[in-house]
Amino acid sequence: MTVAETTGRRRTRRGGGSPPAKRKVDYRRLRNPFPPMPVFSDDRIEAIHEAALDVLERLGTKVLLPDARKAYKSGGATVHENTEMVHIGREMVFAALASAPRQIPVRGAVRERDIMLELGNLVFQPGAGAPHATDLERGRRPGTERDFRELVQLTQHFDVLHMVPPLIEPQDVPMHMRHYATLDAQLSLSDKVPFIFARGSPQVAQSFEMLRDFRGLSDAEFAAESHCYTIINTNSPRTLDRPMAQGLMDFAKAGQVSIVTPFTLMGAMAPITVAGAITLSHAEALAAITLTQLVRPGAPVCYGTFTSNVDMKSGAPAFGTPEHFKASLAAGQLARFIGLPWRGASGSVANLNDVQAANETQFGTWGCLLAGATVVIHAAGWLEGGLTVSYEKLITDLEVVQMVAELCAETPAEEAEIALDALEDVQPGGHFFGTAHTMDRYQTAFYQPLVAELSNFGTWQERGAIDTTSRATGIWKQILAETSGPTVDADALARLRADIRTRSEAGGAPPES
Amino acid sequence: MTVAETTGRRRTRRGGGSPPAKRKVDYRRLRNPFPPMPVFSDDRIEAIHEAALDVLERLGTKVLLPDARKAYKSGGATVHENTEMVHIGREMVFAALASAPRQIPVRGAVRERDIMLELGNLVFQPGAGAPHATDLERGRRPGTERDFRELVQLTQHFDVLHMVPPLIEPQDVPMHMRHYATLDAQLSLSDKVPFIFARGSPQVAQSFEMLRDFRGLSDAEFAAESHCYTIINTNSPRTLDRPMAQGLMDFAKAGQVSIVTPFTLMGAMAPITVAGAITLSHAEALAAITLTQLVRPGAPVCYGTFTSNVDMKSGAPAFGTPEHFKASLAAGQLARFIGLPWRGASGSVANLNDVQAANETQFGTWGCLLAGATVVIHAAGWLEGGLTVSYEKLITDLEVVQMVAELCAETPAEEAEIALDALEDVQPGGHFFGTAHTMDRYQTAFYQPLVAELSNFGTWQERGAIDTTSRATGIWKQILAETSGPTVDADALARLRADIRTRSEAGGAPPES
Repeated sequence: MTVAETTGRRRTRRGGGSPPAKRKVDYRRLRNPFPPMPVFSDDRIEAIHEAALDVLERLGTKVLLPDARKAYKSGGATVHENTEMVHIGREMVFAALASAPRQIPVRGAVRERDIMLELGNLVFQPGAGAPHATDLERGRRPGTERDFRELVQLTQHFDVLHMVPPLIEPQDVPMHMRHYATLDAQLSLSDKVPFIFARGSPQVAQSFEMLRDFRGLSDAEFAAESHCYTIINTNSPRTLDRPMAQGLMDFAKAGQVSIVTPFTLMGAMAPITVAGAITLSHAEALAAITLTQLVRPGAPVCYGTFTSNVDMKSGAPAFGTPEHFKASLAAGQLARFIGLPWRGASGSVANLNDVQAANETQFGTWGCLLAGATVVIHAAGWLEGGLTVSYEKLITDLEVVQMVAELCAETPAEEAEIALDALEDVQPGGHFFGTAHTMDRYQTAFYQPLVAELSNFGTWQERGAIDTTSRATGIWKQILAETSGPTVDADALARLRADIRTRSEAGGAPPES
Repeated sequence: MTVAETTGRRRTRRGGGSPPAKRKVDYRRLRNPFPPMPVFSDDRIEAIHEAALDVLERLGTKVLLPDARKAYKSGGATVHENTEMVHIGREMVFAALASAPRQIPVRGAVRERDIMLELGNLVFQPGAGAPHATDLERGRRPGTERDFRELVQLTQHFDVLHMVPPLIEPQDVPMHMRHYATLDAQLSLSDKVPFIFARGSPQVAQSFEMLRDFRGLSDAEFAAESHCYTIINTNSPRTLDRPMAQGLMDFAKAGQVSIVTPFTLMGAMAPITVAGAITLSHAEALAAITLTQLVRPGAPVCYGTFTSNVDMKSGAPAFGTPEHFKASLAAGQLARFIGLPWRGASGSVANLNDVQAANETQFGTWGCLLAGATVVIHAAGWLEGGLTVSYEKLITDLEVVQMVAELCAETPAEEAEIALDALEDVQPGGHFFGTAHTMDRYQTAFYQPLVAELSNFGTWQERGAIDTTSRATGIWKQILAETSGPTVDADALARLRADIRTRSEAGGAPPES
């Protein structure tokens, strides 16, 4: 096959006599075609919203950053400086929800990579945030800059992935220079919307400057539109730590996107019930959203959740479970209730890319899809509850994501497709292989698998009886070996790297915590 | 773990100090909680229905059984005896759709195994009809009576499987006695709704008699309710062969259930388009349904389809694809249009129980779920496009089916679940592990995995780094070793076996084709 064909187009074997690839697909702008599924009645959703407002108002949120407490206080919150507790009145939340945008356009490097975060759209991200990387050739290891760059290349390659997330931690790069490495990788190897870690103002400010300059934008142009995003995890229960609060404020001021995702595991840092855990998650998300709107009304902020359960025997997290699915459904109802685009998450706790891994991730993804998530993160590659990103799992999960993307396209059923003529042509006992109706369409009719093998048992055995995960190794290796990546302005890249050199020599920028 | 706990209840390790199993689940009567998803607009569904009526009326159906042609003719069809072509007028179809029941109650051996086939209900069947069986211990082999019996035991064990299908072909039993072996297995090892092959009137009549006697019913009692079912595959395009037509007539006369499922692969025995293939499938299903209602108005008949695509390079079937998914959605729309319960099918063409196998089956199952299928067949265990049933895949797919069943249950969100009290109890920085709210619920809150391993990488490695498929081997072996099966009337079983002995000595009953 050619590498260009792994994104969804027909694969032809190298040197084989197969017909040329002709199938064209466009996975870049997806609308969610799935009917939204509720888990709770509307009055229960209102009750959860009310309970969350009560949590914010009466129980309060611990906010570790003094500047954030000041912002909340200016907005009318009751703040106890000695306990760092902030009590946010419901009218503040209502004002924030009124000013938060329903549509958030985010720029890629080129217009076809722009995305629009709004309810009804569907945006996929691969697995992210993992300390480790793994693949069948090199094994499981602490993540490195090389892994990060390779995973950006793979993310870039598949049109169905629309944003670059913080794939793995490049642990071989010191923390005070890690933001240089991750931004360099994203800007030089991808033209998709990049991610910037909220690890304190110095790193964020530098990252904004480097991105602005690389894109050739003025300060005003950069601030006028969103060009990047961050992910804000609250510290459940009811704590907003310093870098997260600072990130919310810095991104809001700069007009860049915060995706707020409390990480509430039922039975651990949240109540054991779906309704309780989602109430806490909703309250924490509203607290964070409110902060962004206090800093800059209209600042782009995305609602989100990552609520699943734990194994009550070990306390270990579980993903892709029925409870995770139900929590996604509840979050989707709440997102529609407040009208904001939102992020849901798939996931798996399997320790290798096997049947459990496939089932959990696909099940978790369906939860997000039926919940109407705008952004689905960890849709491909995530293992061990997020401790590892697997190159092979990235490929095998992308098969599912691409098949989902196929379902986003209209399926025609006009006269030509109902095909009465063809039905008349083929007599009982005949077949449709050679009919004109088939011949006109056979190169384009069907989704062409990325990694699935359609051959029968005998042929598959002759070819070495290779399992899907092992086939995936060949695919990511070929993509890395053969893809050239996006067109990058060589001068801009040279300037970026010179800038990074200067900044590194000046000591980088330590993360804040 | 104890075997009883593999059906969805908490597993405790043997000899361990784990708390006793307390989680009770009931997967026996499921309603489909998923919002039905359309693939075509309502006017396109009407157009497909119209086109199917045109196919039946103008193009005709080849009906190989003279008695069936006679029945169609008596009902008003135009029949050409020389070509065996039957042209069914639309008013005949309308009459059949008016008399076919919307609700089909089917009796198991005990009342808790009764099922109701109607739109909105959800009934699962494992993979069926395979010539081969496979497992990791004994390898891939032609199916045997032992395999059939073991797979019936496994089907019996899981409450989420509601009907016994023709799991594999017991090829070591001669064809003229095979119906004895499959009926013995189903009646002695299961109390669920049994399957009877439509392989000609002699076998069907004998099977009805044996089932009637085993259940202790009079002829009138047997005929008054449905106690078994068969599956009718048309020979696409537009052919109804002898045993299938005979089966439709025999089951209709006896008041037993026919599930009509044309097997139309897009680009092979059906047009290459979803709309075209579904038009053909719909026409063939309507022809078969019409025959049942001509024989006995009100006879229990279930609509169905099995429409997927082929790999246009090899002609090999593909399942769990986007096109398969879309065809399921279209079939669901047509089923709702005519108001009948219907059967959809999942499936996989993978050659071993790996990531591809898991992804295809789960994807195909979601297609059926969002299509509102009443019966989902091949939901667990099917490999190689139906050439093999895998013991391990049966287990690993059942994890998904059980998780789906969990989603059928109501999720409470009353005050106790929203848990404001618990939220107030736990301060920022705290956790919910020890709260009363958690302690009251921790043994019952979450689905307990059947085969998924939730332990972390280190623990999993210490336990031998066993993959999910290999873990599944231990599970099915334990179930076979330890389950006692349903309570069976020893006298009835002795009579059944004596009857089978007598019938065997009399030469059995050869299948008809």
